Amino acid sequence: MTKTELFRSLHHGARPLVLPNAWDYGSAALLAEAGFAAVGTTSLGVAAAAGLPDGTAATRDETLTLARRLGRLPIPVTVDVEGGFSTDPGEVARFCAELAAAGIAGINLEDSRANAGLADPVAHGEVIAAVKSTAPELFVNARTDTHWLGLEVDSTLARVQHYEKCGADGVFVPGLTDADGIRALTAATTVPLNVLFSPAGPAVAELAELGVRRISTGSLLYRAALAAAVHTAESVAHDHQLVGEIPSYATIQRLLET
Amino acid sequence: MTKTELFRSLHHGARPLVLPNAWDYGSAALLAEAGFAAVGTTSLGVAAAAGLPDGTAATRDETLTLARRLGRLPIPVTVDVEGGFSTDPGEVARFCAELAAAGIAGINLEDSRANAGLADPVAHGEVIAAVKSTAPELFVNARTDTHWLGLEVDSTLARVQHYEKCGADGVFVPGLTDADGIRALTAATTVPLNVLFSPAGPAVAELAELGVRRISTGSLLYRAALAAAVHTAESVAHDHQLVGEIPSYATIQRLLET
Repeated sequence: MTKTELFRSLHHGARPLVLPNAWDYGSAALLAEAGFAAVGTTSLGVAAAAGLPDGTAATRDETLTLARRLGRLPIPVTVDVEGGFSTDPGEVARFCAELAAAGIAGINLEDSRANAGLADPVAHGEVIAAVKSTAPELFVNARTDTHWLGLEVDSTLARVQHYEKCGADGVFVPGLTDADGIRALTAATTVPLNVLFSPAGPAVAELAELGVRRISTGSLLYRAALAAAVHTAESVAHDHQLVGEIPSYATIQRLLET
Repeated sequence: MTKTELFRSLHHGARPLVLPNAWDYGSAALLAEAGFAAVGTTSLGVAAAAGLPDGTAATRDETLTLARRLGRLPIPVTVDVEGGFSTDPGEVARFCAELAAAGIAGINLEDSRANAGLADPVAHGEVIAAVKSTAPELFVNARTDTHWLGLEVDSTLARVQHYEKCGADGVFVPGLTDADGIRALTAATTVPLNVLFSPAGPAVAELAELGVRRISTGSLLYRAALAAAVHTAESVAHDHQLVGEIPSYATIQRLLET
């Protein structure tokens, strides 16, 4: 089975796919070593690592550079390409084909547009169709930001159904955490539903019962990583005991040799 | 006071400078916001983030790219340049001048050579002198890896004294944690002594009493960050409660707007 085929099958297992989102090679490699079946990327993490604003075309090159590094991992990788870094369907499709050529198994493609609200659903559907036509093997997870932007449920349903019709392999509604809303969406689509894990929302077991097939962590891991770095530095500065297991220098070096 | 002048003065304060080492823009910016007076970089972190082996010239470009991003921070930044990514003193000096031009206040320059043991001390002294001649404002922290490589104390003393004579503004002996060894070094040099914090070694208060002027964290924060990322992902996957404060998405976004 190729990594692409494996990634697709992970959306149809006995349990939902818990997809941790990495921000660099080291975090992705350690998550792979920890036994996660696949990893995603987080656009916030990639942008922050580079000191660039999130959600703009400025992170296009960083995204491609990271994707090329992650393509050599032994597990499937899906890349957050924000809105595709272009409004031209052909250009987005060529970018995604580069990702596929780098060994990437899937993408997240959102209908938010930097500083411009939501894309027109028909125009965004054309982007999805162009990507699927150019790189049919890529698992295209169509993200709609209706919920985050506080739009009504009907608008979410209409968009995910349209994106599915345009070829999306999965749909993703970040910010959706209520059971009724999740049930309405799984009933309205035939492709796997992805939600964003929220510490304040339902746990994985409950999301599984509601029919969610994929649960991603978004920027949570990067934010937890930064918190740990600052906390560790403060512990050193104030002579506090360090808590928790920290991998050795040799462990990290070994990740880089493969 | 310029950032360079401030950085120099931080080696002569009432307490030693506790220098946390960042691996990317986000970690450095959050450490600055947390109140640390200066930040360094970690070559292991920079290499691992890029999926490159540590301690080789492969990370030269990554180091420069990161330095340019960190030069815009409001606090002084010192950059780990490994052995200078070249054996030619002029080439190392030109590289360091680029860092200074990017707003960097200091460098760490080590006498280890990738897969080639320690550099000849005279040859390494010429590299230090070339850097100081080309970019005199840069705080050059001369690191010797004698201790890590298990060489005798005399060899360490001779090297740090020679590097000081060649213009080093500070000396750094990673792996040195015993009180007698630290006392011998502070007695033998007039420039500030930097040691690497070790969870198994003396705490900051004790290092301060021994005359240490700078305590850096090396790759510890990056390793703690990766551990936190994996631990958080595992907590999500196994429905465990997340512990500790994690900065919000908005907090990280705000770091990128400055």
